[in-house]
Amino acid sequence: MKNNTTTTKARDKIYLTRAFQLAWKGRFTTTPNPNVGCVIVRNNKIVGEGYHIKAGEAHAEIHALRVAGNLSQGATAYVTLEPCSHYGRTPPCTTALINAGIKRVVIAMLDPNFCSKGRGLHLLQQAGIQVEHSLMLSEAESINKGFLKRVRTGLPWIKLKLAASLDGRTAMSSGESKWITSIQSRQDVQNFRAESDAILSTASTILADNPKLNVRWTCFSKTMKHTYGKNQIRQPLRIIIDSANRVLPTHRFIQYKGKILLARLKKDHLNWPSSVEQLLFSSMCYHGQYYINLIELIKKITQIHEINNIWVEAGATFSGALLNIGLVDELILYQALKFLGSDARPLCLLPNIKCLNDIKSFKLIDIKIIGSDLRLRLMPKNT
Amino acid sequence: MKNNTTTTKARDKIYLTRAFQLAWKGRFTTTPNPNVGCVIVRNNKIVGEGYHIKAGEAHAEIHALRVAGNLSQGATAYVTLEPCSHYGRTPPCTTALINAGIKRVVIAMLDPNFCSKGRGLHLLQQAGIQVEHSLMLSEAESINKGFLKRVRTGLPWIKLKLAASLDGRTAMSSGESKWITSIQSRQDVQNFRAESDAILSTASTILADNPKLNVRWTCFSKTMKHTYGKNQIRQPLRIIIDSANRVLPTHRFIQYKGKILLARLKKDHLNWPSSVEQLLFSSMCYHGQYYINLIELIKKITQIHEINNIWVEAGATFSGALLNIGLVDELILYQALKFLGSDARPLCLLPNIKCLNDIKSFKLIDIKIIGSDLRLRLMPKNT
Repeated sequence: MKNNTTTTKARDKIYLTRAFQLAWKGRFTTTPNPNVGCVIVRNNKIVGEGYHIKAGEAHAEIHALRVAGNLSQGATAYVTLEPCSHYGRTPPCTTALINAGIKRVVIAMLDPNFCSKGRGLHLLQQAGIQVEHSLMLSEAESINKGFLKRVRTGLPWIKLKLAASLDGRTAMSSGESKWITSIQSRQDVQNFRAESDAILSTASTILADNPKLNVRWTCFSKTMKHTYGKNQIRQPLRIIIDSANRVLPTHRFIQYKGKILLARLKKDHLNWPSSVEQLLFSSMCYHGQYYINLIELIKKITQIHEINNIWVEAGATFSGALLNIGLVDELILYQALKFLGSDARPLCLLPNIKCLNDIKSFKLIDIKIIGSDLRLRLMPKNT
Repeated sequence: MKNNTTTTKARDKIYLTRAFQLAWKGRFTTTPNPNVGCVIVRNNKIVGEGYHIKAGEAHAEIHALRVAGNLSQGATAYVTLEPCSHYGRTPPCTTALINAGIKRVVIAMLDPNFCSKGRGLHLLQQAGIQVEHSLMLSEAESINKGFLKRVRTGLPWIKLKLAASLDGRTAMSSGESKWITSIQSRQDVQNFRAESDAILSTASTILADNPKLNVRWTCFSKTMKHTYGKNQIRQPLRIIIDSANRVLPTHRFIQYKGKILLARLKKDHLNWPSSVEQLLFSSMCYHGQYYINLIELIKKITQIHEINNIWVEAGATFSGALLNIGLVDELILYQALKFLGSDARPLCLLPNIKCLNDIKSFKLIDIKIIGSDLRLRLMPKNT
């Protein structure tokens, strides 16, 4: 009996792991919905697989059930998130699972939404289906960090990207900086941008570097290009903080496809293309100067656009401010194996730090060699 | 026949690898001699093993032959370095191998000394012994970097230790710095100190931190303590660059066991203990100021004390100067997963760097997580 239980548990983990692999495929496209994967197993054989591809289209369960067809009768369904029980953009998956004759459902995580949590589970059980849940919770948390944070707090998961030399410098004192990191690191940044719903930057960065801040399919690796067609990749919303109305319609990023949001204290009356929207916010004082209220900005934009993940690429002042306010969930630091010397420009301005007690500490998530650089993924310790 | 050759080669590599493991055990004690290991194999069984422990005492081959006794007859000897052929501090190992009836000798690397290179090999061959050599050359280079560099160039292998936050800072602007890195990193530094023949620092570091700059057996890990007794660990020569005679007999490191060398432009007449020697050098101009001539210092000290490895622990100015002059062979960088902010003190002063063309680049040797820190071992790209 004990051996049987062990075997079942081990098998459940194997099939759920496969369901997570499938769910991960949707990371460039599902937003504002979560990434979800589903595997249908009958007589220890996978008879159907699927994942949620795009909001408004079929959920993972529906894709998997379609593949399985009649073989769903008496089968087990593995789902990375509790099947939905409401008529939303699509009919409820619980009904589909019940109608397909599924006998057992294994769920990695219950719905994080307080109102619907456990409802899908209850409906399945009422229909006589055996249900197991809350297996592989940490994997389930990890694959939908942004979605889960938004549902729970109304705030998105914010990733701050920084790139510097080993002595913590980003550019020469003259501003000369192209390129400190390798081409592989810049390609890697493209992946992060593509996974994000929004890219956040500042007018200072626009004025200094005149970047495109978009996702360029041509920069992806061969494998990525093979898996995701050019039209599958969305352009994240580009949000530029521009308290002093310094961004102009002539800046390069304006010409590139995708919605742009200029966060401002007051509107201007220039001739903007239809992709650009000016949104007004109140100001807040930060170290003696007035800036746009960041928390208000992020809350409001998250609410309007249902944003799960924000990717931040900005300079030393704004990056420091985000860290100081405690808005950073994850820091992605590219380190070039170089010394630029102490006259070069610093990585991060943190005017709050006066003594060792004030310093910012991080926890290492992982480290990777990318081209000739190192990439560290870190979590601020105090958030 | 081809299969036989393959098998023999694979076996040779296995036994040589074992010989390298043995050689590595001597890293705290053999200097100024190289690390050497020896394995005696008969009928595919190890019948004797040994390594060189201390200059003036028996070489690796002698230890291994003693263990093997009569079983050396017709056996193969694996040695990580060409057996010596001269009467030095001990009788020649070639004679011992011949007298023991060894039939075949496999040598990882020939003697780097131009005068004796191949002489041991020749003597063995003359005695009818089959000899293979120059297998696993890169391992042989790697295990005796310091010894080989000294024999070839008259200069030792110089390791520069630096420790900083991820934003490249070593201390708060006030000087507050205890401790940026974790206790595990500081223990790791003890290993590097113990492997070195000399520790090089400056009067500025002595005045700022009043360190001991010694090897503390009590700081070693359990395994290290188990393998090496308290008395086996030597105290490296401590060399302090003190152009302005600022070091005093009352400084803490003076009280701790081990020879000290004060590198000065002129002597003082204070009451120094017998462990302290004042050695005079000429001055050199570096960025408008006069310092002790570093290259003269290192050459002279290497010659007098037969130094293979120098471990440098100093501040931003001296570390920068060493890198600028091109005297660093290896950089050991401990990174604390912290941000100290841009007001904090910089890692390295490199006044030579004016534009991106001047920057210092490194090649990664390895990376390791140590306590809560990262340890990067790097090689400057231009040396």
